[in-house]
Amino acid sequence: MRVGIVNVTGYVGAELARLLARHSGVELVSVTGRSAAGQSLSAVFPHLAAIELPITAEIDVLVDLAFLALPHHASAQATRPLLETGTRVIDTSADFRLHDQATYEQWYGPHPEPDLLAEAVYGLPEIYAPQISTARLVANPGCYPTSAILALAPALALGLIEPEVIVDAKSGVSGAGRTLSLSSHYSEVNESVRAYGLEGHRHLPEIVQELSLAYGRFAGAHQAGSGVKVTFVPHLVPMTRGILSTCYAPLTRDLSVKELRRMYTEFYQAAPFVRVVDEPPQTKQTWGSNYCYLYPLIDPRAGRLVVISAIDNLVKGAAGQAIQDMNLMLGYPETTGLEALPIFP
Amino acid sequence: MRVGIVNVTGYVGAELARLLARHSGVELVSVTGRSAAGQSLSAVFPHLAAIELPITAEIDVLVDLAFLALPHHASAQATRPLLETGTRVIDTSADFRLHDQATYEQWYGPHPEPDLLAEAVYGLPEIYAPQISTARLVANPGCYPTSAILALAPALALGLIEPEVIVDAKSGVSGAGRTLSLSSHYSEVNESVRAYGLEGHRHLPEIVQELSLAYGRFAGAHQAGSGVKVTFVPHLVPMTRGILSTCYAPLTRDLSVKELRRMYTEFYQAAPFVRVVDEPPQTKQTWGSNYCYLYPLIDPRAGRLVVISAIDNLVKGAAGQAIQDMNLMLGYPETTGLEALPIFP
Amino acid sequence: MRVGIVNVTGYVGAELARLLARHSGVELVSVTGRSAAGQSLSAVFPHLAAIELPITAEIDVLVDLAFLALPHHASAQATRPLLETGTRVIDTSADFRLHDQATYEQWYGPHPEPDLLAEAVYGLPEIYAPQISTARLVANPGCYPTSAILALAPALALGLIEPEVIVDAKSGVSGAGRTLSLSSHYSEVNESVRAYGLEGHRHLPEIVQELSLAYGRFAGAHQAGSGVKVTFVPHLVPMTRGILSTCYAPLTRDLSVKELRRMYTEFYQAAPFVRVVDEPPQTKQTWGSNYCYLYPLIDPRAGRLVVISAIDNLVKGAAGQAIQDMNLMLGYPETTGLEALPIFP
Amino acid sequence: MRVGIVNVTGYVGAELARLLARHSGVELVSVTGRSAAGQSLSAVFPHLAAIELPITAEIDVLVDLAFLALPHHASAQATRPLLETGTRVIDTSADFRLHDQATYEQWYGPHPEPDLLAEAVYGLPEIYAPQISTARLVANPGCYPTSAILALAPALALGLIEPEVIVDAKSGVSGAGRTLSLSSHYSEVNESVRAYGLEGHRHLPEIVQELSLAYGRFAGAHQAGSGVKVTFVPHLVPMTRGILSTCYAPLTRDLSVKELRRMYTEFYQAAPFVRVVDEPPQTKQTWGSNYCYLYPLIDPRAGRLVVISAIDNLVKGAAGQAIQDMNLMLGYPETTGLEALPIFP
Repeated sequence: MRVGIVNVTGYVGAELARLLARHSGVELVSVTGRSAAGQSLSAVFPHLAAIELPITAEIDVLVDLAFLALPHHASAQATRPLLETGTRVIDTSADFRLHDQATYEQWYGPHPEPDLLAEAVYGLPEIYAPQISTARLVANPGCYPTSAILALAPALALGLIEPEVIVDAKSGVSGAGRTLSLSSHYSEVNESVRAYGLEGHRHLPEIVQELSLAYGRFAGAHQAGSGVKVTFVPHLVPMTRGILSTCYAPLTRDLSVKELRRMYTEFYQAAPFVRVVDEPPQTKQTWGSNYCYLYPLIDPRAGRLVVISAIDNLVKGAAGQAIQDMNLMLGYPETTGLEALPIFP
Repeated sequence: MRVGIVNVTGYVGAELARLLARHSGVELVSVTGRSAAGQSLSAVFPHLAAIELPITAEIDVLVDLAFLALPHHASAQATRPLLETGTRVIDTSADFRLHDQATYEQWYGPHPEPDLLAEAVYGLPEIYAPQISTARLVANPGCYPTSAILALAPALALGLIEPEVIVDAKSGVSGAGRTLSLSSHYSEVNESVRAYGLEGHRHLPEIVQELSLAYGRFAGAHQAGSGVKVTFVPHLVPMTRGILSTCYAPLTRDLSVKELRRMYTEFYQAAPFVRVVDEPPQTKQTWGSNYCYLYPLIDPRAGRLVVISAIDNLVKGAAGQAIQDMNLMLGYPETTGLEALPIFP
Repeated sequence: MRVGIVNVTGYVGAELARLLARHSGVELVSVTGRSAAGQSLSAVFPHLAAIELPITAEIDVLVDLAFLALPHHASAQATRPLLETGTRVIDTSADFRLHDQATYEQWYGPHPEPDLLAEAVYGLPEIYAPQISTARLVANPGCYPTSAILALAPALALGLIEPEVIVDAKSGVSGAGRTLSLSSHYSEVNESVRAYGLEGHRHLPEIVQELSLAYGRFAGAHQAGSGVKVTFVPHLVPMTRGILSTCYAPLTRDLSVKELRRMYTEFYQAAPFVRVVDEPPQTKQTWGSNYCYLYPLIDPRAGRLVVISAIDNLVKGAAGQAIQDMNLMLGYPETTGLEALPIFP
Repeated sequence: MRVGIVNVTGYVGAELARLLARHSGVELVSVTGRSAAGQSLSAVFPHLAAIELPITAEIDVLVDLAFLALPHHASAQATRPLLETGTRVIDTSADFRLHDQATYEQWYGPHPEPDLLAEAVYGLPEIYAPQISTARLVANPGCYPTSAILALAPALALGLIEPEVIVDAKSGVSGAGRTLSLSSHYSEVNESVRAYGLEGHRHLPEIVQELSLAYGRFAGAHQAGSGVKVTFVPHLVPMTRGILSTCYAPLTRDLSVKELRRMYTEFYQAAPFVRVVDEPPQTKQTWGSNYCYLYPLIDPRAGRLVVISAIDNLVKGAAGQAIQDMNLMLGYPETTGLEALPIFP
């Protein structure tokens, strides 16, 4: 099978290239990038020197599947032409993540391709594997939503918590991408932590949508409409990769930690990349890998569930998850090309 | 006035020395440290070379006030002899922070000097300035409690929130001190975030005590006994200094952000080191200084208060606050010796 | 005395403001910045909130002395109007550092004010204190040159080494300023070291000039023309502040380390900010302070002198040194306003 | 083929496990570690959870090849018993790197197995591939020597430089291992650079040996005895992985950069992991990979060669190189198991 990457020049694009170059099933045949068109991939990213591909302005050969690593709006615009030539699409932007057009437009402005919304599948394999397998268009989840949904979906789907959650997320700086900004400027960021997006981060509606759907599975469709109340506060932490989300919610009933872990373990028993662990994870355990570590616990003093999740934001939070989706779509084992162990320390 | 530091060889001791050396009112005349006794201070800490003092095993001259930077238990043991010679004491350990002996013993084991508990004053000047001024023994607050209490005390004292709070705190590694440990080993910590103390961090009872007292001021003494329910999750972040605490609680009533900020600003109008700000603070803005930045806001979707506080854990979270206490005790302006602006970037 | 800062919005400008705000002799009365004109200083730099000054487009009040923190060329252009109103000037750009106009123009292009070159004094107080005291226009040295010259001037002036030196310098990222660039982008820089400026860094001619003058003192004026051959390789290291320069040169004669240290100590006996030390320094020992640590040693196997110097690039390498110059110019003790001890850890 | 790792609990051991677990030719069947014996590998290193192996006290099954990741002396002692059972050995300690017993004993004390010295092959595949292929005992090079030898061997072997070199090396902290020490304590190391090992680092004799042998190839055996004079100054840089070595030497003749690069490229044309590049490399380009980037250039002002090399100290500087050696010894393609691309950013 032949695949291509549209806009390889950002961090998600580069990470897709890194992983696809060593995938045993597919061949990476085309990478694009407008401003860098004409250069070799290794000129932009020396670490990818082993991939001998030129960067072109557009995908110039036929591919079975294309990854879009474009900004939102541009992604939606690039999607239809690809679909029309029979190319399946995994979009890593936010364009097809929200099912509700009005919600999308409240956060992102007019949607360029609203007719495709109904068809797009939310690409979280731990929940939507069957739908992803047959999809023509997959919306790869955001990094924060991935970490929050994997942490809280079991508790909501099993009715363990009230639908009132707090997600306190700590992200490395690569999540902000390669575009220059004072908030990614080394001297401003290093040796410092701060919260941001406090008036409402764009990943919030995505978290609300998926947690509400998970809760709906427990509460029944007629109640799900009311949705889950989510307070989401992302933080920028002085490291390059990784998201640690600490999630809080009131328990609906008494529960031992042992029972809790058993329920989480069962929930994810078919998920090769989710590890429910006995010790609090650190983001570094996931470096460069597609793993998500989950550590659920109970604060007995306050009657609260606390779940901690750790991922590499560029892998399970972006490129790795997209490849996991691709594996499902193209019929490869879910882990193909994602076997490398995390790099520690 | 003459002052001394007991156990100058840790980070809090060294930070006390750094600040006291430039204090215009007091003279630092004695610094101790068992294992380093006989060495000069500059041999242990080259950055303190300008302070030409030997490290001795015990305070060997008469001082008006002594700072204890010892581990708990050792601190309590060192306190009485000093008090008996008329030396006032500021203890930076946890030994005199908890008013209730039973609570102390639940977290720290038998108290070496329970009779002194009643006398000790909790050294948070923003709340207890009058008591500190006349105290013989001051218990300098913990770093996490300082950040959490300053963030939430106004909301509790004014009845703005339910007594059910979450404190999600992110700390630099220096908070763990100078004692070697795998959890402070560079390669294990760098480029990684993790939560810890999840079975109950020792700063929890201190936070509960002070937030309950603050809430008691609103709810009346008869209700205060029930206390405030606190879920406290500390995190280790790859930076040397700084604590950012993100605090969450359900609002009791409708409130505009403007009103909220006005109330916080008024609450701290006499506090020279607390700044209620309009933009989310970052820890780096406090580097080396005694400031606490507070950013209160409202999540209208969830009806929650969110307050973010930023401090330098070694200054406002330890040595600086101790000097602020000393200034009150000795009659200097509260800011003496703490005038230096934060170092950025 | 009243002082002003032209272009306070970069890191050198902000660092000047931080230090001047606490200087006991001068009053900071005016700070400028074109793009930020109209804002308060604290809006741009929250850590400077205690300085209640608006940023103006131009210095709008009479000042006795002005610091220029402009890019080169702009600095030279701003100098003459200030001098003509009787304001003394300390320029932190490269515009007046090189005595030879042709050399300047080879590296920086046409000089806007060549007539002022002869008058400008190179502001390294350890060597030019008398000239600085009476100067109207002082050229504050570059950060790399400061570290290299302080390390090697004694050895050259005393004839201990051949005039063939290597300066391998490691700098924190703040040296690159606040202007956005991929080479200061957090994710590109963190966890990485690289050399740069390999075709010739602009600080090279400045190092050559001053080391040749130092050598001339030993070799006599007629030989000095030949100059010192300098290989200068700057490196970017993942930290915010600090320069460590490791300097190498062939020894001209046998020498014990003890003798060597004695000679260095004597050379700098009147220099309050230079410390010749017995243990290899680390940059962190200088954080926020004006100190330069020097560690000279001998490689007996190769017959080479090795000298290591450590400074804070924004203090002794920029703003602190400028204030040291100002103190000399205005008749204050050299250390006024620079008394704060380094912040460690 | 079956392989084992003796002392898997340090960083080199863990890195060997990470890479061997995904090697398509060999099976990792045994990992040892005295203090951790009885635990699972994942209990010590959660990132290795996918490797389901217990840690044992000794290698308890027959293996074709064993990697020793022990401290020196312990390594030599463990070698003979393994060789006697027919197990081939790759030793990552310093015990068999130095051919001359007296030199070894000057730096490390008495050699436990001097009789094996003559047999051991220095495991730098770019130079000794044929000897490694047939060796029973391979001494895996040190991290600093790998970076320095690859940088300078071509220039010495081709007679381009005088045998008087300076190696200024910058290393990440993981090179110091997992043993606790103040010099690897996060708060002491972060945001700081320092030189160390200034009285003579143990990697010096190894560099001298191999550079002298390289020079001998040019100068002829009778002159090689005189050896190459090496000044080696290692530095600790605040990052986890990576070594950048900047190497300096006087040129023996005029040479264009183009010619120089061509000669380096030719020298390494058969070396799959050495890349001679046109832009100064940064260590991060090698993260997690076995690549060595070389950037040779000329300082025409001083008539000096400058060569910059970048490696990941735990991969090409340790575990990756050991696996490259193993591939040669067992007849696999040199790159097997080392195909993963570097992780950036």
